[in-house]
Amino acid sequence: MTRVVYESWGQRVVFGSGTARDDVAAEVAGLGASRVLVIAAEGERALAEDICKDVPVVATFGAVRPHVPAEVARAVRAAAHEHAADLLLSVGGGSTTGTAKAAALTTGLPVLAVPTTYAGSEATPVWGLTEDGHKRTGVDPKVLPRVVVYDATLMLSLPTRLSVTSGLNALAHCVDAWWAPRHNPISSALAVEGVRSLASALPRIVADGQDITARREILFGTYLGAVAFAGAGSGLHHKVCHVLGGAYDLEHAALHSVVLPHVVGLNLAAAPGAARYLGAALDAGADPFGALLGLYSRLEPPRSLGELGLAEAELDRACDLVMAQVPDTNPRRVTRDKMRELLGRAHRGDTPVAVPLPTEEHPR
Amino acid sequence: MTRVVYESWGQRVVFGSGTARDDVAAEVAGLGASRVLVIAAEGERALAEDICKDVPVVATFGAVRPHVPAEVARAVRAAAHEHAADLLLSVGGGSTTGTAKAAALTTGLPVLAVPTTYAGSEATPVWGLTEDGHKRTGVDPKVLPRVVVYDATLMLSLPTRLSVTSGLNALAHCVDAWWAPRHNPISSALAVEGVRSLASALPRIVADGQDITARREILFGTYLGAVAFAGAGSGLHHKVCHVLGGAYDLEHAALHSVVLPHVVGLNLAAAPGAARYLGAALDAGADPFGALLGLYSRLEPPRSLGELGLAEAELDRACDLVMAQVPDTNPRRVTRDKMRELLGRAHRGDTPVAVPLPTEEHPR
Repeated sequence: MTRVVYESWGQRVVFGSGTARDDVAAEVAGLGASRVLVIAAEGERALAEDICKDVPVVATFGAVRPHVPAEVARAVRAAAHEHAADLLLSVGGGSTTGTAKAAALTTGLPVLAVPTTYAGSEATPVWGLTEDGHKRTGVDPKVLPRVVVYDATLMLSLPTRLSVTSGLNALAHCVDAWWAPRHNPISSALAVEGVRSLASALPRIVADGQDITARREILFGTYLGAVAFAGAGSGLHHKVCHVLGGAYDLEHAALHSVVLPHVVGLNLAAAPGAARYLGAALDAGADPFGALLGLYSRLEPPRSLGELGLAEAELDRACDLVMAQVPDTNPRRVTRDKMRELLGRAHRGDTPVAVPLPTEEHPR
Repeated sequence: MTRVVYESWGQRVVFGSGTARDDVAAEVAGLGASRVLVIAAEGERALAEDICKDVPVVATFGAVRPHVPAEVARAVRAAAHEHAADLLLSVGGGSTTGTAKAAALTTGLPVLAVPTTYAGSEATPVWGLTEDGHKRTGVDPKVLPRVVVYDATLMLSLPTRLSVTSGLNALAHCVDAWWAPRHNPISSALAVEGVRSLASALPRIVADGQDITARREILFGTYLGAVAFAGAGSGLHHKVCHVLGGAYDLEHAALHSVVLPHVVGLNLAAAPGAARYLGAALDAGADPFGALLGLYSRLEPPRSLGELGLAEAELDRACDLVMAQVPDTNPRRVTRDKMRELLGRAHRGDTPVAVPLPTEEHPR
């Protein structure tokens, strides 16, 4: 019976459909802001302009790049100073939210986030910065957006493949929370409901990308998963993806989609609590892993690290990098052989397998 | 499809068993406090002294009374000023936590709460003050304890009856969250897991009050319920109890125990979402109301408002008071006749009944 520490974070979250412009205007006013720096990638500038029609915008920062390179962080901070901004307003996916968080980290300015994917960064106090090919991450309550405005209609134009991979990225937040270093009953409860929402709604998006009820349910699942992740920390799945994504610049959401069922297959036999949670969330009875694979076969996400551009020749080095990051709280001891096997299967796109627990190995 | 607004609150929560003294010392140090005003009722002074052995205490305030009378609030604020306290540390049930919150409301001092019941006040930003027989309540983030230290061993001496009523008070936080004015999928998810924990663990406490695993599960359920309640607001059940408790000074936790199944019986037919949540939480299949009554029959809580001291002659006036407070968001329209019937049944201790939805009445 271990000691459990749980930290919650203060945040105001608005869920709506077709209401982003009104909600953003009301929330900006509620924060008392009068000089707003908008952060939006070039491809989302028109959307951001539309959403911010009734907001006192002083400038728009468009030079967003994945993983927040240090020079991007410097540029957005300089823009905030130059324009004497009193609020950072991000419109976009995880990289855009991350750019706003990087600015908040040093300026202390509040962030209002309007997400356009299911990345979940808007609901965590985690920041990331990349310099010299190395991504540093940290936790600081300052970077947690004070307000999140979700609008399900903003996701209607997300292509099916990106909806699926981004949604599975959200699912990975939930699943990893069950065995992450600070896993706890509160985060786990949020994660169960997150998986339930995502597993119910993602197949409906594949059938009809305009299903606004399903889009809305995915947002609830996204938020639940992100809060669970913020509470529980990074588990094995996120360590694997963090290492591979950082070292080989692989497409973020697709990478999560590919890796998740392999990590679940490795851990589940040693994590009876997680198996119970996953079973409950997927109404899976005695075979939660089979139910997860069933969900995957309905969603048809990318299956292999090879198709994401990782060369087979890199797998040994990738395995070494991953092994240095395996959390020592993982429910099962991860040997180099097991991880190398996992990466090989994920690289080839083999069907994920449930790795049985040998009789001599006990769950930790 | 309505707009949903959810507010979360920042708080650090530690769950342990037999670890209160060490955890409190570490958390006081973490908050940087050096002049601690302890708030503990006379009956818990020895416990508070023991827990605070390694804490820089400047004074102890013991004049705690239920519902935080205004003169108690004035006295505890004066004590905080007089001793130049930099932290309010409460050890006790809901009234004690409430006294600390009343002091925080005007002084802005942080609160560290060590609960000894399942009241849940430690996890909400709601304060209450009673003056001239009228209880005012409000919401202010300042009063939310920065840190909660739960220790399951502190509840080992709670008598069975109070464990049951206090635990059902926690259960009521969960259930009411499903139809409260700001009900939302996040609070509802927390509430499902809260009910699951409480319904599993409370019968084990009745069988063996020293079952520390069960005591611990109840703490998780308590916390989940309180957070759900903080997110969703007061539903019909809490309005009924607030009115009756305030006007007739009835025993708080027992009042919740008596009223809850009657309110559930009234609302459930008009609240299919709540019925689904309750069914899932109790593994109840098609009869969640029957499962709730089954739980009650295993716990044997007080059943009637009469035995709590409410005179039958007061029921008409009580009904008028309640009717003025019925939330207009309640899933079913509540007529005066229906409420008077409900109070009559609750007063006599009749078996709660599921009130069917007449064909002409649709859920709102």
